[in-house]
Amino acid sequence: MNSIAPLDDERSGPPPLPLAGQAPPMRADAARNRARLLEAAARLVAERGADCLTMEAVATAASVGKGTVFRRFGDRTGLIMALLDRSERLYQEAFISGPPPLGPGAPPVRRLEAFGVATLRHLDAHRELLLSAEPEACRRLDFAPRHVRVAHVTALLREARAGGDTELLAESLVGYLDVALLHHLTQQRGMTLDRLEAGWQDLVARVARPA
Amino acid sequence: MNSIAPLDDERSGPPPLPLAGQAPPMRADAARNRARLLEAAARLVAERGADCLTMEAVATAASVGKGTVFRRFGDRTGLIMALLDRSERLYQEAFISGPPPLGPGAPPVRRLEAFGVATLRHLDAHRELLLSAEPEACRRLDFAPRHVRVAHVTALLREARAGGDTELLAESLVGYLDVALLHHLTQQRGMTLDRLEAGWQDLVARVARPA
Repeated sequence: MNSIAPLDDERSGPPPLPLAGQAPPMRADAARNRARLLEAAARLVAERGADCLTMEAVATAASVGKGTVFRRFGDRTGLIMALLDRSERLYQEAFISGPPPLGPGAPPVRRLEAFGVATLRHLDAHRELLLSAEPEACRRLDFAPRHVRVAHVTALLREARAGGDTELLAESLVGYLDVALLHHLTQQRGMTLDRLEAGWQDLVARVARPA
Repeated sequence: MNSIAPLDDERSGPPPLPLAGQAPPMRADAARNRARLLEAAARLVAERGADCLTMEAVATAASVGKGTVFRRFGDRTGLIMALLDRSERLYQEAFISGPPPLGPGAPPVRRLEAFGVATLRHLDAHRELLLSAEPEACRRLDFAPRHVRVAHVTALLREARAGGDTELLAESLVGYLDVALLHHLTQQRGMTLDRLEAGWQDLVARVARPA
């Protein structure tokens, strides 16, 4: 299972759930080096696009050996996940413990509506990086951030007493919040993000009401 | 846009929709050679699994040069699509012009139910090959057989007067009929195909009723 958490050699054992505030402390110099590599990587993406983000290019930009980049991030996907880590944590915090309607306190259907909109905007903001890091078909859905989304939607559907096979209904809803689908609909079929957000509200209204 | 139709050098211009009975005639010797290559490819998959299906392995098995295989099928995806061509045509014929409830003549919601079951079984039967031919994220959804499915589901939702943004509801339903999702749910999460089929019926009942 992939994890959104970066693959750090300073860290022992696999990270648990990719939630905010769970990273063990890192030595100060290791943290500084890591931050410097991520800064170089972010600059590369901003200047030349996600396609040009390679382990080699990051090593050159940060004036370190290629091996250092591989040791720090494992592979290109690990590097991209580390780049996305901060915004993924903020996004997860918002729906797990932030203010309503996205966070706890609002009715479940209202939270589902807000969750879809937040997710579509998160995917849209990082579309290029997420697309370029997408794993092959066999591993694509066995991916920590996606597990967190399915668990969240399942819990809200249960709370809304939607009935039916809640897990499969959640899979179906989360399938709408997919970066490749968003890319296809907005870039290849010319739909607006507003239209996708309205489509999500309609889908939730249909799926979440008791059968 | 990918097409399910094989890339034949005997054919001029891009093929139209990948429906049954539309392939232009092929010279007898070209057709024989193509059939021989496909036979070798099918044998390779049966004996060694989809992962071992390479252009080189097919050339060796059929005792021809690698260039012949590339000229005939374009690339590995083209080869796999040619292998899947016959069953894709039978599957498409069944829902476009076959007997009800899958084909015309049954009420639209009944046809949607039958369509999902037929598609899940089609995907399950060819899971390995379809997974190994899946294009990268940016092109994955811009794929002829998927366009045919979305158009079919859109038409049935309109006929059922489901209301809402019919195109987006169709995208969401077709998203459930995805080979990577089927693989994840059956192979990585241990769900049965029966459960997925029941989940589809429930999803259709919710999505197709007027909002």
